[in-house]
Amino acid sequence: MNKIVTIGREFGSGGRELGRKLAEKLGFEYYDNEIVTQIAERTALSEQYVREVIERSPHELFPITVGHSFTYISSYALDKKQAVFREKENVLKKMAETSNCVIVGRCADYILKDYKPFKIFVYANMPSKIARCRERNNGAVELNDKKIKKYIKEIDRHRASYYNFFTGQEWGDKLYYDVCVNTTSTPINDIVEYLAKALQ
Amino acid sequence: MNKIVTIGREFGSGGRELGRKLAEKLGFEYYDNEIVTQIAERTALSEQYVREVIERSPHELFPITVGHSFTYISSYALDKKQAVFREKENVLKKMAETSNCVIVGRCADYILKDYKPFKIFVYANMPSKIARCRERNNGAVELNDKKIKKYIKEIDRHRASYYNFFTGQEWGDKLYYDVCVNTTSTPINDIVEYLAKALQ
Repeated sequence: MNKIVTIGREFGSGGRELGRKLAEKLGFEYYDNEIVTQIAERTALSEQYVREVIERSPHELFPITVGHSFTYISSYALDKKQAVFREKENVLKKMAETSNCVIVGRCADYILKDYKPFKIFVYANMPSKIARCRERNNGAVELNDKKIKKYIKEIDRHRASYYNFFTGQEWGDKLYYDVCVNTTSTPINDIVEYLAKALQ
Repeated sequence: MNKIVTIGREFGSGGRELGRKLAEKLGFEYYDNEIVTQIAERTALSEQYVREVIERSPHELFPITVGHSFTYISSYALDKKQAVFREKENVLKKMAETSNCVIVGRCADYILKDYKPFKIFVYANMPSKIARCRERNNGAVELNDKKIKKYIKEIDRHRASYYNFFTGQEWGDKLYYDVCVNTTSTPINDIVEYLAKALQ
């Protein structure tokens, strides 16, 4: 069986960078935006549409219905959205079966549970996340800390809601991960070094 | 500055074993019961008494007092208990200043924060903790799972209360640790291997 590493991460914690470097270090495939591209190919929908669907609130996609509204939910629009979800599962499984890989986000830890992934969660304290966002943004946009913090919290609230809805687990609860790493005080390159050891 | 590693752990997660093996692997000193022994030496109190004091509910040691009860709290008994706490801090700092070391429990992560320790938290799911307790107990005592679970929860509730009281932080909240490791699916020896890499 291939070695699968999944990475859940708080926005601004550097989880994506960590995942990419870990994949490089291990010689594993790295999947992040490729997931969107592949779903788009399989559904003949645009990448932009797929991204919107898999990143929007899950409750919009599975409305609670009563009585006559049944005909409404089986509408073409909803079918299309649900097709995106089905394909996401197929794409992830195909990736897991093809080679050793590192997959960032997309509830991959849960969807691929039968493949026994090594599940990592990446987090940091708020000042460190704000600093990383500012750095990443290259100073192009002038936002104060309060606004960046609000944005980080919004993104993470959304990730949590999405993850909790589809998995029935609690996003970021350490119980659902093999290891949780804090990027506040330890450089990402150092974390990559020891995690690579965990996976060799 | 010496390298200090602190280990917080859920009861039954194998945190103590992990700490001991990590210290061995790194050639660091390992401190666990030695802390009690040294406090006992410094205070001329028995080890049993010291252990009882540092493991009991902190609220008993720092009662909320009003008005005339002041004379009551400055009683000899209370002074003795508070002396144990002061000495715990001194003992931990002495250890941190003497050599590289791994310290298990005792709020060492918080007490030694100025020494920039690498803070590890060890945890596992309940079935795995029950199995470990049963194994450790060598089958000598016949307890059903329900009773073991109750016992584990009681110990951990107590650890949390103690830690939260003295540190103002939340015991087991990943934000307060550099890395949190789950011993449910990964053998402790493997975790020791990669954590040693993190600390070399």
